Amino acid sequence: MKMRLILLFLVFFSPISFAKIPPRFFPSSFDDQLSSKGKLSYETNYFTQILDHFNYNNPQTFQQRYLLNDKYWGGSKNNAPIFVYTGNEGNIEWFTQNTGFMFEIARHFNALLVFIEHRFYGKSIPYGGDKTIAYSNKTTLGYLSSTQALADYATLIIDLKNNLTAIDSPVVVFGGSYGGMLAAWFRLKYPHVTIGALASSAPILNFGNITSPYSFNNIITQDFKGESENCYKVIKGLWKKIEDMAKTKDGLEKLRKSFRICKNYISQGALENWLYTAFVYTAMTDYPTPSNFLNPLPAYPVKQMCKAIDDPKSGKDTFEKIYGAANIYYNYTGNATCFDLNDHSDPHGLAGWTWQACTEMVMPTDGNNKESIFPPSKWDYNERAQFCKSNFGVEPRPNWVTTEFGGYNIERVLKRFGSNIIFFNGLRDPWSGAGVLKDISKSIVAIVAKEGAHHVDLRWSSKEDPKWLKQVREREVNIISNWFSQYYQSLNEIY
Amino acid sequence: MKMRLILLFLVFFSPISFAKIPPRFFPSSFDDQLSSKGKLSYETNYFTQILDHFNYNNPQTFQQRYLLNDKYWGGSKNNAPIFVYTGNEGNIEWFTQNTGFMFEIARHFNALLVFIEHRFYGKSIPYGGDKTIAYSNKTTLGYLSSTQALADYATLIIDLKNNLTAIDSPVVVFGGSYGGMLAAWFRLKYPHVTIGALASSAPILNFGNITSPYSFNNIITQDFKGESENCYKVIKGLWKKIEDMAKTKDGLEKLRKSFRICKNYISQGALENWLYTAFVYTAMTDYPTPSNFLNPLPAYPVKQMCKAIDDPKSGKDTFEKIYGAANIYYNYTGNATCFDLNDHSDPHGLAGWTWQACTEMVMPTDGNNKESIFPPSKWDYNERAQFCKSNFGVEPRPNWVTTEFGGYNIERVLKRFGSNIIFFNGLRDPWSGAGVLKDISKSIVAIVAKEGAHHVDLRWSSKEDPKWLKQVREREVNIISNWFSQYYQSLNEIY
Repeated sequence: MKMRLILLFLVFFSPISFAKIPPRFFPSSFDDQLSSKGKLSYETNYFTQILDHFNYNNPQTFQQRYLLNDKYWGGSKNNAPIFVYTGNEGNIEWFTQNTGFMFEIARHFNALLVFIEHRFYGKSIPYGGDKTIAYSNKTTLGYLSSTQALADYATLIIDLKNNLTAIDSPVVVFGGSYGGMLAAWFRLKYPHVTIGALASSAPILNFGNITSPYSFNNIITQDFKGESENCYKVIKGLWKKIEDMAKTKDGLEKLRKSFRICKNYISQGALENWLYTAFVYTAMTDYPTPSNFLNPLPAYPVKQMCKAIDDPKSGKDTFEKIYGAANIYYNYTGNATCFDLNDHSDPHGLAGWTWQACTEMVMPTDGNNKESIFPPSKWDYNERAQFCKSNFGVEPRPNWVTTEFGGYNIERVLKRFGSNIIFFNGLRDPWSGAGVLKDISKSIVAIVAKEGAHHVDLRWSSKEDPKWLKQVREREVNIISNWFSQYYQSLNEIY
Repeated sequence: MKMRLILLFLVFFSPISFAKIPPRFFPSSFDDQLSSKGKLSYETNYFTQILDHFNYNNPQTFQQRYLLNDKYWGGSKNNAPIFVYTGNEGNIEWFTQNTGFMFEIARHFNALLVFIEHRFYGKSIPYGGDKTIAYSNKTTLGYLSSTQALADYATLIIDLKNNLTAIDSPVVVFGGSYGGMLAAWFRLKYPHVTIGALASSAPILNFGNITSPYSFNNIITQDFKGESENCYKVIKGLWKKIEDMAKTKDGLEKLRKSFRICKNYISQGALENWLYTAFVYTAMTDYPTPSNFLNPLPAYPVKQMCKAIDDPKSGKDTFEKIYGAANIYYNYTGNATCFDLNDHSDPHGLAGWTWQACTEMVMPTDGNNKESIFPPSKWDYNERAQFCKSNFGVEPRPNWVTTEFGGYNIERVLKRFGSNIIFFNGLRDPWSGAGVLKDISKSIVAIVAKEGAHHVDLRWSSKEDPKWLKQVREREVNIISNWFSQYYQSLNEIY
């Protein structure tokens, strides 16, 4: 069996200066229906959406997909709530499959479930759904932005409520990762459309110079170092060994064999990227129960990787040890015969993120200090700008997100402004360093799970879930219940 | 001396169905430096502004004008405050001249004064400052919108603070009328850029069906009726008399002579509009002290108009009585020899409002019920849509403002969201019916002056100001002081 490989990341990857462009939130092969067990059901709808909300010279529209489940809904007569997932940078079905939490709590709240797909992803492609046109150049891609996406959500939700005559049904938005950023921003910008937001693993502080560019890789480093000092040292020493080997005669071929890379393609950079990807995404999704990427992952996969590295049976051969670790990420079932570094498929339709990273989503994450498990490197904005200019002919606007959404001194700004946001972060998640980790006010709260990974709270529950995870979800449910109590009370007040 | 006449309003005016399109906030001839007495000083600056904040396919910029006065500023070292006027639909110098309040309180607060011009107005014209290009069609006008304007203000303020190394200087925004709407929306959308907003006479509820379309003219009706029942009846009876007269042989010529209209142009519609304008803008600016439009106005001009109408000396001739009233608005100094209904000059550069009214600023104000001082009419969206289509080739988006900024159930929405907004309204102002007239929370408050008119609080003070007006301004100063106290305290807190 050949293995699929993340592709877009490769675009950013430079074999010499390591990981100069930050990883995307997800590898393109992420997939998980493990825990849905038939509980996942929805109908698919399309909404005629305005292409440009902020300009009146363009009457174009596009078909925006949204998924609906009304099985648990208490109906408009009861002003029963509406839960909306603010879709992120991929196929909405994929995010829906990975957000079992909303399905599981819908019955308790008698909530309607709505999952809205982000423009330019999945089947929500402007220009008649033709991706080759939509993605062809900066003119057509110009409409792909977070601000337009938020206006899409507002427009669609208001229209949906009108159609359901559910004007007074309270809306709560949910989102993970970039979708979590959108959920938080949506509550801040559209309080008249949503009464609250659960923003899970939303690195809204990963802009400008709010968060250190070393934070991301430092957390990954700590994840592995926390398992064992040896594991950390072996991975840290790996990169020089690869470099040295690649310089020798037949070195690349030896590396290819060591890591069971298919014969069709190998390069030092591609191999490094392939390994880097395994460490980054394993840290990001270091979940306490088995999960399902491309291939199944065991519970606590970082621990399993380090076990493979620390295993005395694997002797002193670093490559053999690292192969064992990579195998956990890429081949846990053991069915793979070789790994194809040249597989550029994009099954979850994540390609648009490259454009977003080249315009507004300038998130400095790829610094590596001397402690890092990866080779030392500095965050270099100019390198990004150069890439974007040559790739799209655009210059990023690195200050736009903090101008439009803020971020600096967030505690001071939001202490007496806004309400009803939950920021969840798991500290094993490298993105957590740019999340909101402290309560800002009584109703803008941080839930922090020391042992948690990337939006673990949003996943389907399982019997094996640890106590802390159950407690996180219980707390989220309680807070959302309070939002509803307040809302329904104010509904009865006469102004 | 010939009188200038408002012009854009004429565009909207239909002689048969009366006043189908709402009045703009200001007649183009509004002007007032009466009370500035040399206290008005500023330097003029230009900022290179992004033309399209929400799309990345357009690298164009334009020069945005802003006026600066640092005479009272306490400096960045002291984190002294910055007062920003969020410019509205005209030349920023004109608004600056009419916002003496900011100059007068700047000394007390050691504040830097900044008046930012709204894009597409005054000298802040995209396309190299060429108004004939900028206003030529929907493609170039497409960038004229409130959302772009707010992003302009955020971008300019952040840049200015960086340049002044005044990062921690708190910003308070001020605005009147449409500028007041922008100020309130700016606080709601950009809490990270401003700590509070004084939104004076901001009819933010004049969208969708939140406010009755009869509200605007009902308030004008009450203004005149409150002075005398006879005054109301004479004006109410006027329109039929004009109609009847116009039908007679030489009727128009007789009307022309009655109202001292210049010989070059008269039509029934233009005459009606000329009179309607006088009543609307006199009601709107029914200030308690003499003010200065094109020509000086006396204190309480509505009272003066009714005095002219009720004056026994003017006999029973309705036209003579109404001429006397119109003369208060158009010719208080008595220098005019005739009034030119064909004067389409636009000295304050208000032309862009027609475009805004045809895209997002769909404010239903021109209904007249049977009590109205004006002939009965219904608000008709289709009429607006038709006008806009034939004029610009665009269809308005009547739901956009409530989608983007809210408005429905504002008390419920903002009761636990947002803070630090003062909504001032004077109840003699026809726009006040669509203002926020009740406190929403402890820090989103309404100041209502029964005897106040359109943003009277922002004007230069005078010795003759009535007690209630002094109290309004004192209360505003006190509230702003509290915002600063809280802000400087939070500046000292460590997070």
